[in-house]
Amino acid sequence: MQNAGFINNKENEEDKHASLNPPSAGRVAFLLHLADTNLILAQRNAEWCGHGPILEQDIAITNISLDLLGQARNFYQYAADLFNQSTDLPGTIATEDSLAYLRTEREFKNLLLVELPNGDWAQTMLRQFFFSVYQYGLYNQLINSSDLQLAAIAGKSIKEVAYHLKWSSEWVVRLGDGTDESHERMLKAIENLWPYTGEFFIPEDYETSLLNKITMASLKGAWLLKVSDIFEAATLPVPGNTYMQTGGKTGNHTEHLGFILAEMQYLQRTYPNSIW
Amino acid sequence: MQNAGFINNKENEEDKHASLNPPSAGRVAFLLHLADTNLILAQRNAEWCGHGPILEQDIAITNISLDLLGQARNFYQYAADLFNQSTDLPGTIATEDSLAYLRTEREFKNLLLVELPNGDWAQTMLRQFFFSVYQYGLYNQLINSSDLQLAAIAGKSIKEVAYHLKWSSEWVVRLGDGTDESHERMLKAIENLWPYTGEFFIPEDYETSLLNKITMASLKGAWLLKVSDIFEAATLPVPGNTYMQTGGKTGNHTEHLGFILAEMQYLQRTYPNSIW
Repeated sequence: MQNAGFINNKENEEDKHASLNPPSAGRVAFLLHLADTNLILAQRNAEWCGHGPILEQDIAITNISLDLLGQARNFYQYAADLFNQSTDLPGTIATEDSLAYLRTEREFKNLLLVELPNGDWAQTMLRQFFFSVYQYGLYNQLINSSDLQLAAIAGKSIKEVAYHLKWSSEWVVRLGDGTDESHERMLKAIENLWPYTGEFFIPEDYETSLLNKITMASLKGAWLLKVSDIFEAATLPVPGNTYMQTGGKTGNHTEHLGFILAEMQYLQRTYPNSIW
Repeated sequence: MQNAGFINNKENEEDKHASLNPPSAGRVAFLLHLADTNLILAQRNAEWCGHGPILEQDIAITNISLDLLGQARNFYQYAADLFNQSTDLPGTIATEDSLAYLRTEREFKNLLLVELPNGDWAQTMLRQFFFSVYQYGLYNQLINSSDLQLAAIAGKSIKEVAYHLKWSSEWVVRLGDGTDESHERMLKAIENLWPYTGEFFIPEDYETSLLNKITMASLKGAWLLKVSDIFEAATLPVPGNTYMQTGGKTGNHTEHLGFILAEMQYLQRTYPNSIW
């Protein structure tokens, strides 16, 4: 399975990115990073579907899941187009589905934060909040990108993200400034998740071609400001400097991702290209 | 847990419907039947979220899940209103969430068809098709109901159901008239599911107050006509008369429902009224 490859070409076992011209390789990697992150968070949120404590919120979190899945598809489609245009390998075709279902754990470039287990409702809400603040800032940069297709996807997605941000902010305040127990649960969630927020702003090579280091630093400043505002309303403390986990962006994942992929990719790997 | 009751009143362990005046009892039961059926099928379809073979279809089936969940909520809310208005028990309050999360297996009135395991994609598509044909006909009756609130919910939902019907019909034709393997899978799905379609049209007491026997017979005729049309296009045979399974509408379920409820109701039963 490790060598099956996502390009639907059984004969080629080489590194697929090596065959791309350099500008495209970086761009494809960046798009995959965006797509993977959306896809994995969509999967995690979807685990709540039918298991939430309140019907209304069950629907809300599943809707967010669908938004993220839609965004993932847009990025995968664009990555597949670029890949198919720039590869030197004859007969290799990538599709949104091959990119989602046939890449290995080491090829996935999602942020570590999104692959962590859901934990309780408080932790899921805090993760969504941390991520949505980041994603909102990022898309606000990307809408000005000289890559017009990327800008268009970001522009189309930003209204969805604004809603995710509003909704998750309200939950953070409601739980943080709620009962003693909900406050305690939020403190625990902060402790669990904070070390995974640094990765947002530690740029990989494929990011700096589209977002320079100054942009990353300003994204980080804006993120911290928004988080501090909401935490103040939620009577929650902002943690100080601490060791930050990294690796997701370059394929070094926690033990959790393998399980997600095994479940998600099972059908496509077992019955390639089938539809039932 | 059997005696916890859905009415948030720990002191009362009696049969809750016994306390309702007769017209309301029947109406509440009918609404619960509609709500439960939508809820359980929503759960089943949601199991595909993140596990479908194609991203696009993953999103489609999850959207159908959300539509059904939304319809379930409308019916539960109306049932809770009626219950709260007509109960003689002081201090008992039903809510959409108490009705969904705190009723036992024997109190659930969903059709047996929707609680069956998903099986493969072909079987999930065939079930959606059988159900959507039925639901479309049913809602077309209910929009003329003298119960204006029920008519309004049906009217709001019918556009969604028309889409579910169109989408699932296309899948039935695509798979039935597809490859040898997909055709075989559809035959198997028909064999598995057909015995559960008779229950649609065998009226319970609580239904005949709102839909008389003539209406049920005409619903059945229209259903069979539509199924025959699509099966012809799909090169699939319509089964002859056979023994039909019943019991779901009155709380006699297959062994599968208990597992669905255990998973779905876990959070609410473990942490009553909490939100995390």
